[in-house]
Amino acid sequence: MAKPKKTPRPKAQTPKGFRDYFGPEVTHRTQMLRKIAAVYDRYGFDALESSGVETVEALGKFLPDVDRPNEGVFAWQEDADADKPGDWLALRYDLTAPLARVYAQHQNDLPKPYRRYAMGPVWRNEKPGPGRFRQFYQCDADTVGASSVAADAEICAMLADCLEEVGIDRGDYVVRVNNRKVLNGVMEVAGLAGDDKEAERGIVLRAIDKLDRLGTDGVRALLGEGRKDESGDFTKGAGLDNTQADVVMGFMQAKRDSGAQTVARLRELVADSKIGTEGVDELETIADLLGAGGYGADRIEIDPSVVRGLGYYTGPVYEAELTFEIKDDKGRPRNFGSVAGGGRYDDLVKRFTGQEVPATGVSIGVDRLLAALDAKGRLDKTAHGPVVVTVMDKDRMADYQKMVADLRSAGIRAEVYLGNPKNFGNQLKYADRRGSPVAVIAGGDEFDKGVVQIKDLILGAKIAENATLEEWQARENQYEVARDDLVTEVAKIINGTS
Amino acid sequence: MAKPKKTPRPKAQTPKGFRDYFGPEVTHRTQMLRKIAAVYDRYGFDALESSGVETVEALGKFLPDVDRPNEGVFAWQEDADADKPGDWLALRYDLTAPLARVYAQHQNDLPKPYRRYAMGPVWRNEKPGPGRFRQFYQCDADTVGASSVAADAEICAMLADCLEEVGIDRGDYVVRVNNRKVLNGVMEVAGLAGDDKEAERGIVLRAIDKLDRLGTDGVRALLGEGRKDESGDFTKGAGLDNTQADVVMGFMQAKRDSGAQTVARLRELVADSKIGTEGVDELETIADLLGAGGYGADRIEIDPSVVRGLGYYTGPVYEAELTFEIKDDKGRPRNFGSVAGGGRYDDLVKRFTGQEVPATGVSIGVDRLLAALDAKGRLDKTAHGPVVVTVMDKDRMADYQKMVADLRSAGIRAEVYLGNPKNFGNQLKYADRRGSPVAVIAGGDEFDKGVVQIKDLILGAKIAENATLEEWQARENQYEVARDDLVTEVAKIINGTS
Repeated sequence: MAKPKKTPRPKAQTPKGFRDYFGPEVTHRTQMLRKIAAVYDRYGFDALESSGVETVEALGKFLPDVDRPNEGVFAWQEDADADKPGDWLALRYDLTAPLARVYAQHQNDLPKPYRRYAMGPVWRNEKPGPGRFRQFYQCDADTVGASSVAADAEICAMLADCLEEVGIDRGDYVVRVNNRKVLNGVMEVAGLAGDDKEAERGIVLRAIDKLDRLGTDGVRALLGEGRKDESGDFTKGAGLDNTQADVVMGFMQAKRDSGAQTVARLRELVADSKIGTEGVDELETIADLLGAGGYGADRIEIDPSVVRGLGYYTGPVYEAELTFEIKDDKGRPRNFGSVAGGGRYDDLVKRFTGQEVPATGVSIGVDRLLAALDAKGRLDKTAHGPVVVTVMDKDRMADYQKMVADLRSAGIRAEVYLGNPKNFGNQLKYADRRGSPVAVIAGGDEFDKGVVQIKDLILGAKIAENATLEEWQARENQYEVARDDLVTEVAKIINGTS
Repeated sequence: MAKPKKTPRPKAQTPKGFRDYFGPEVTHRTQMLRKIAAVYDRYGFDALESSGVETVEALGKFLPDVDRPNEGVFAWQEDADADKPGDWLALRYDLTAPLARVYAQHQNDLPKPYRRYAMGPVWRNEKPGPGRFRQFYQCDADTVGASSVAADAEICAMLADCLEEVGIDRGDYVVRVNNRKVLNGVMEVAGLAGDDKEAERGIVLRAIDKLDRLGTDGVRALLGEGRKDESGDFTKGAGLDNTQADVVMGFMQAKRDSGAQTVARLRELVADSKIGTEGVDELETIADLLGAGGYGADRIEIDPSVVRGLGYYTGPVYEAELTFEIKDDKGRPRNFGSVAGGGRYDDLVKRFTGQEVPATGVSIGVDRLLAALDAKGRLDKTAHGPVVVTVMDKDRMADYQKMVADLRSAGIRAEVYLGNPKNFGNQLKYADRRGSPVAVIAGGDEFDKGVVQIKDLILGAKIAENATLEEWQARENQYEVARDDLVTEVAKIINGTS
């Protein structure tokens, strides 16, 4: 008889580019999302949760022009139904494309304008890299159906409120606002407006975006013939003449000490462009509205160097930057940088309905914001592991269960050790690994006397860290208390009042 | 020149079997998950969030034995990498299979036993039906690495606590506990233990599961020759003789007034079976532990008729049932039924590591539990829409923004109307649609006098509903207040103290 073929064991591994999140990684994010949702709610935004799966058709942008539409998204074809071929489905790659679909599908049931927020995972079928995952969280708020820039101003204010709510101090962030129309005006003035100038405009945009890194000379070089970097590599420039480059440089450096002065400078620069002037008017309105709401330039400022995702946007654009320094991998200080961004986009719903619907919205990069809070030591790491009730006598399990039940009733996180109780050392090692503040110990003697032993693991850890041998010997970190006082005594240790 | 081909507009539609959740549908679920997470946390369970995507290999059960492993899951093949074919990936269909993978992958970094909770969407590639969606939430807690039935008892207690925490009153639910080993013992005693009796055992299990619906006579018929239902259709029975059927019926009806009596009765029934007696011992231990923790039979009871998902489980099984009546679609009363279930399973991790790792856990059906709370009128529907500040004069937008900023600073949900302000009636209709408690109105006159008009929409709605014409005319639901008193006056209306 042939030996049955042995199936090899499956590999226990996340797919490439995916990861697991444990304990505080999950709860810190949950808490942050809750705080942001509270701000969004206060601004009148309603929650929306669409499914992770959409038709490829509705997602757009990634149409199945080949056999398999796997460019950037995870997609698959449904089973055929009778003689109809199955739909192509895909995991959403952001929360904006589904919003457009939802708005087009449900518009008769939605208030107009429709303010909605959404938070959840999105998926990208991209090459993963360090810190770059193929599933990550987005946390968006958008207003659909409002053409007024008051909608943009509101979102900038809300973004500032969100940052403060999650623990970024005023002064440690700035929301920077620009307007796509002003930039279009600048291109017009610089003679770069024509359809045949798209390549040049692209180079100009990328050059502006590199100001932080390359400085003005570097940008200037990229606007002209090009630039050789330190390694000797040459990047071809936009080929602008001096006059043209002056216009762009003037725009990029148009930021002044006050919003009003910046607006005035921009107005000069695009005086000859209708669209540019309109953009400056909008920026001025936004600044006025924000000022009236109490959002001064210490929180939200006009900054012509913001060129974020400009291919997509049609009006105001905004981004939130954290202004404090952190150390990079090599210990060098660097600015933390952008944690949120967005702007006005007017043609997403049109794909479905033929009607142009104005919309503006922001997306907060939750994971980056968490990393920032962590870097600033602002994540609440005081969360204790559970009190561990150890098991000296496994026939007393019911008594141990009663102890944890009592502790939990008082709101104290607690558990009975559920592993093999034979090796008591393992139980204490377990409590240590769990970050437990207290271990409770009770065997036959204790039960007879109606007491329990309490081991203060917080104190124990402190002693181990800082104490001299004398201090160590002088301090009691394990002591006996009456069983009836268990909850009170444990609470004292946890609250730091023992 | 050929006319460019016009792309047809995409359909704005969720894929078949998926849906969108709006406003309170999202926030009610979020609140419920938060409450359940708090209970799980208090019991010492740690959060875990794995990604929605797993390798088909790790998920198991759905191996790619055909070209495309699409039986029950949504799956797709990754692009080939050099000369290696791409992995098959799939959306997770539950939270247990990923837990087994996580435990096997990270076991050196996890405490043992490992208590973890997880909440999130799962996906099933099944034919959708009314109320059956292809993406839905699960909310699980499992203990991995504890063979003691104390782990099972703990999860039953935790389940009871969760139900009370989310608003199910004591007396409106019961957690019912059984043990797969007792059932195996019964099969043994009834002569149904052999490998050749699998078909019969299946029929017996399904028959027991139908006790509620068919009554004892119906079940008895299914244990014997079979049963003809009202429509005349015949279901083939297990073909047991009377003695065999007596054993099964005796088991099924073994429930007595107290847990101790039920245990005694079960002990009699499986006296001749080693595995059965072991199962009864475990049930007794569970009842003792729960009793010691204060969880009496009013909350958790031993019930031999629980046969939930028995193919999967190896020891204790448990399910939570809501015991109150609701009306079905036709207005007939019926029991709400099961909202959560779980049990002990011991071979999921073994697939990866070769080592058997004991595990037990529960899954709460969040959507069903929400429906139950809704049916009982227990969902907080008092959440108001935002205060709407209307726009009488669009040049005053900054003043309106200041009003909402003031309201929000006081924690009041508020927004400026951002649609086209021309038609004032539309603004009030919008406020109505948003469920606003208050509309604020201010035009040139009001600004000159330093006042605003407040329209009490709660009172307005009440008047419209209940009042006689005289009452209607007698009540003021719009009045003038000083601009400086705006926040105070609006707060009065919202808090019901005006």
